[in-house]
Amino acid sequence: MAQRDAELPVAVFDSGVGGLTVLHECLVSLPQEDFVYLGDTARFPYGDRTAQQLVGFARELAEILLADGAKLLVVACNSASSAALPALREELADKVPVVGVVRPESRLAAAHTRNARVGLLATPATVASGAYERALRTAAPGAELHAVASAELASLIQEGGEVDERTLACVEGACRPLKSAGVDTLILGCTHYPLVRPVLQRELGRSVSIVSSGEAIADEVERELRAADLLRDERRRGVYRFLATGDPEGFRRLGTRFLQLPIGEVRHVEVEPERRAAA
Amino acid sequence: MAQRDAELPVAVFDSGVGGLTVLHECLVSLPQEDFVYLGDTARFPYGDRTAQQLVGFARELAEILLADGAKLLVVACNSASSAALPALREELADKVPVVGVVRPESRLAAAHTRNARVGLLATPATVASGAYERALRTAAPGAELHAVASAELASLIQEGGEVDERTLACVEGACRPLKSAGVDTLILGCTHYPLVRPVLQRELGRSVSIVSSGEAIADEVERELRAADLLRDERRRGVYRFLATGDPEGFRRLGTRFLQLPIGEVRHVEVEPERRAAA
Repeated sequence: MAQRDAELPVAVFDSGVGGLTVLHECLVSLPQEDFVYLGDTARFPYGDRTAQQLVGFARELAEILLADGAKLLVVACNSASSAALPALREELADKVPVVGVVRPESRLAAAHTRNARVGLLATPATVASGAYERALRTAAPGAELHAVASAELASLIQEGGEVDERTLACVEGACRPLKSAGVDTLILGCTHYPLVRPVLQRELGRSVSIVSSGEAIADEVERELRAADLLRDERRRGVYRFLATGDPEGFRRLGTRFLQLPIGEVRHVEVEPERRAAA
Repeated sequence: MAQRDAELPVAVFDSGVGGLTVLHECLVSLPQEDFVYLGDTARFPYGDRTAQQLVGFARELAEILLADGAKLLVVACNSASSAALPALREELADKVPVVGVVRPESRLAAAHTRNARVGLLATPATVASGAYERALRTAAPGAELHAVASAELASLIQEGGEVDERTLACVEGACRPLKSAGVDTLILGCTHYPLVRPVLQRELGRSVSIVSSGEAIADEVERELRAADLLRDERRRGVYRFLATGDPEGFRRLGTRFLQLPIGEVRHVEVEPERRAAA
């Protein structure tokens, strides 16, 4: 790996604003670091993309972020992590370490479960990839994964300012098989879902532990930087930059809700136009 | 205490919509119970009221709620709990048990702190009452309480749909003395504050435990009902009613954000007009 500079920012990308829930946890753990966040809002949602499309998107976004320099890359999107992480890690092996969401969450779920029945709520692309099954098999051999795919929950959350009847019905429908399976731990397999965590907790009851990726990723980012001696001075305060492939103003407005921090300027960046119909 | 009926609802009141964060935790723990919630939105905020005013308000709201019947009363407002709980408990001793927010939170803080330095962020009325100091002295003799009063944070949260620069500046200002004092635990002394919990956590860092009243109260409500054999059948699903002293539509709109549950009909109830200028 090439010599990296501690003064470079940590780069984070996601399909849209959902990964800001991951960025938030990184800011709690590492207030001294600079971060640059890229939301691919023009091509949101990723949940029903093919693995091949997701690898292409991830490669393109990583290239944009690394062109400006970064000391670590976080793939803060479960669909992209599930499909593209091995390829991305291999291609960037001599440039930066890449942290994804699947392994940290699976480890956290393994640490929480007592009855070895773990639920996963995620997009169809993430469930279809089987990435969580593989990661959980490593983290907790013998544990069962009960996966529920929701094609619409991420979009409902992104659209809605408040929890409405449709979102509620969607959450209730998703929780029904999880309750039947008796899971005691639920992995939130999409970075949008922390915004309806209270609704999920109400539906599943207090005995079910809900695991989201944010804190687990923040831990892994800190560990990676510490191991490479790339942490910045704790007394400084980091600065944050935001890029979006879609409408910057829409990103700013939505993003403030996800990050709970006023987002100033958002720079627009171009990506390959979407060829979804042809895919 | 008079014979109470398990089929009656649990009644909850607050100065506005903030107590819905407490109601939420009660719904997680006790989905089988019915709840009636009364928000005194016409007289919000309570944070700069005198103790005498708060006792009068609490008495009036309790009377409205108990007229329809209730098996337990929750004072889900820190200002009202701090000022009026002893009086209310005494007056209602032969009718219903009354659960407030101060004692459960202080116990939780005592359980969390390792360095015996506990912070309190609350309204001026709550800080001035000294109720948390007394409760913490009982729960953790020898612990120091570092109290910070904010006159405006609850209103900023209630007004704002998203976290803006003013809210951020207010949180930063409030956290400064808490960081100087080296507290390792912070009591959220107002039911509005859970909505900016991520901002507080970012400001204080991950090593500070943030304690809010919701879960502690939900535990106490469950314990009280179980002890009196007044819990309902776990297989049923409770119904929730909402009353407001101010504009019902405003309550519905704001409340949905606080509760993360669509709030249907809100019934308007009249209270004594505000005599704040004369107070």
